[in-house]
Amino acid sequence: MSVTAPRGFVAAGAACGVKASGAPDLALVATADGRPVPAAGVFTSNKATAAPVLVSRSHLAATGGFAVGVVLNSGNANAATGASGQEHAERMCAAVAGPLGTEAEQILVCSTGLIGIPLPIERIESAGPALVSALAADGGPDAARAIMTTDTRQKEAVVAGDGFTVGGMAKGAAMLAPNMATMLAVLTTDAEVDAAVLARALSAGVATSFNALSVDGCTSTNDTVLLLASGLAGPVDEAELQRAVAAACDDLAGQMAADAEGATKVVRVEVQGASSPDDAERIARRIADSALCKCSWYGRDPYWGRILSEAGSAGADFDMDLASVSYGGIEVCRGGIAYDHDEDAVRTHMAEPQLLVTVTLGLGEGSGRILTNDLTHAYVDENMGTS
Amino acid sequence: MSVTAPRGFVAAGAACGVKASGAPDLALVATADGRPVPAAGVFTSNKATAAPVLVSRSHLAATGGFAVGVVLNSGNANAATGASGQEHAERMCAAVAGPLGTEAEQILVCSTGLIGIPLPIERIESAGPALVSALAADGGPDAARAIMTTDTRQKEAVVAGDGFTVGGMAKGAAMLAPNMATMLAVLTTDAEVDAAVLARALSAGVATSFNALSVDGCTSTNDTVLLLASGLAGPVDEAELQRAVAAACDDLAGQMAADAEGATKVVRVEVQGASSPDDAERIARRIADSALCKCSWYGRDPYWGRILSEAGSAGADFDMDLASVSYGGIEVCRGGIAYDHDEDAVRTHMAEPQLLVTVTLGLGEGSGRILTNDLTHAYVDENMGTS
Repeated sequence: MSVTAPRGFVAAGAACGVKASGAPDLALVATADGRPVPAAGVFTSNKATAAPVLVSRSHLAATGGFAVGVVLNSGNANAATGASGQEHAERMCAAVAGPLGTEAEQILVCSTGLIGIPLPIERIESAGPALVSALAADGGPDAARAIMTTDTRQKEAVVAGDGFTVGGMAKGAAMLAPNMATMLAVLTTDAEVDAAVLARALSAGVATSFNALSVDGCTSTNDTVLLLASGLAGPVDEAELQRAVAAACDDLAGQMAADAEGATKVVRVEVQGASSPDDAERIARRIADSALCKCSWYGRDPYWGRILSEAGSAGADFDMDLASVSYGGIEVCRGGIAYDHDEDAVRTHMAEPQLLVTVTLGLGEGSGRILTNDLTHAYVDENMGTS
Repeated sequence: MSVTAPRGFVAAGAACGVKASGAPDLALVATADGRPVPAAGVFTSNKATAAPVLVSRSHLAATGGFAVGVVLNSGNANAATGASGQEHAERMCAAVAGPLGTEAEQILVCSTGLIGIPLPIERIESAGPALVSALAADGGPDAARAIMTTDTRQKEAVVAGDGFTVGGMAKGAAMLAPNMATMLAVLTTDAEVDAAVLARALSAGVATSFNALSVDGCTSTNDTVLLLASGLAGPVDEAELQRAVAAACDDLAGQMAADAEGATKVVRVEVQGASSPDDAERIARRIADSALCKCSWYGRDPYWGRILSEAGSAGADFDMDLASVSYGGIEVCRGGIAYDHDEDAVRTHMAEPQLLVTVTLGLGEGSGRILTNDLTHAYVDENMGTS
């Protein structure tokens, strides 16, 4: 039931013709009673910011952190569309605000798909009233389906808190095509919290989940994570809320990594013993984003020399003589040189769909991890063109 | 005649058995009269520094910027080999210093090949005397051949200065395999200059050539560029020396980009109108290193939305509304949105082996450029394994 699992939310999905294929491409998540509730958002840091991101940010600022719902489309990112792009994003909010009996600024908006092509806003406007009519407490899966692009599976999560629930849906396939690279997630909860507490919980949850997921080091123009709180479950402990929100984010991020269209493996890169957590993350990200490391994982080659070379060029503290590398917990390099190990055991681990690479630096207490994928022929195929 | 084109240098190449294939794998460049001459080096910034880099650096420091010659091997990087790796690099210098009648610290050393495997130093030591005996004024091509790894062609350059000559040889294929990712270059000149002037000329030349070449954003443990000056042509103008050294570096870097094993295109990314030269280079490098952009070039897809998205996430000043993108000089995006253009002309350009991508930011006077390649199925093939 995903995004409608927490009390007080309804959702719907529809096909309005943004996608030429006729597949579902329009989704709405809203409060069941049409009431504005506390809302928080985390948006892309890309300075090439898409129109819906600009509009959602400005709506959250105007309402002081409240929203009635979120409208989302797939098939067109409404990015690099200039001033008319922002007008279209506003009209997209208005298209559902009217039938919902609220103002456009009470609606947040997300888009995902091709960049640089005007949004066919009339199709979305025409579909608005029917979409609102279709809102239902069991509409979560329909909404989750309508935001898919290269995803092969819809992504939903439900986490039980102490007396409350967190639900969510997301899109973003592991091997993201350039034309649909966006990661979108909408989370809901019935916890009773103010907007500031909600924003803190969301930021913390995103940092350890979506922001620890790196497919190819690219940052989309449209990346957005939103969280709405209906309050119907009453007051909750803030730490407990953070835990539940983080768990839901982590679940959705894991589903993205596992939806490995174009990839054969999910690879967890863990760095320990760094001078600082920042250094650990920098090194983990450098390794995860390395085309050479990614190809070697695809080829099942435990080539630790390349891992150390990336660690050494990450811009973090590094001492080769103290560095060790393990695959699946089996040390293959210790103190910067080859270490005798059970080659059959490493070979078996390299053949598995989940790979664990651990780098130990011996410099301090900093640790960090990044989830990523291998680089494959199918990735190249997917990203050769937009057609 | 490459590295022996300037007066006063001899070179040789040999097969000593580091490469299992029996291909040439050992090279030597030295002064014809065995005299130490001013020498300068630029080395990898990777903190996972290979033994030969540590030894060459320490020899240059000990001699105050002098050297009699450079010994190089391919087939083994002598990297991640610990304390015995440094001992081996010293022994490699000694193996040619003795027959040359000089001290080991007068010899600089480079290695390229697999990381993490002990160098078979005895084979190199055995080959030392014969290598020195083979030194000849026409030995440049033999030396250039002996440093090749995935290179399909040997790389040599000669630039005529005003009364002097700069020569050089290099290795490094465009689509570098992870086990042989190193870029090595040895340059020579007969200009009469002191070590400080030589070092300035080399740094300036490297900055605009090798450092403006980005194949996959990875930095090798072994990258080294060396320049020796015999002085036989007498004093020269410093600016003229810098020009000639930069031209030789540029020629060799261009040959690396063009030796596109695993790539179908050389792509020049030019950024203009940035707030600063640093910002321009940062954006050019971000675009050049983007797996998504690289795949789209392979697929001949002029997808400018992805270019702008990378520019926006480069950590540099960026305003989408002022940004334009051209392919082969044909504007496809202006002011952050699609721009009507001759699609046939763009299609023709995208099919060519040399691609020009120009991004204009409209923010200032900063410009920068990076030479790179596309990302192809063959790149994945090459980098799947070390065997």
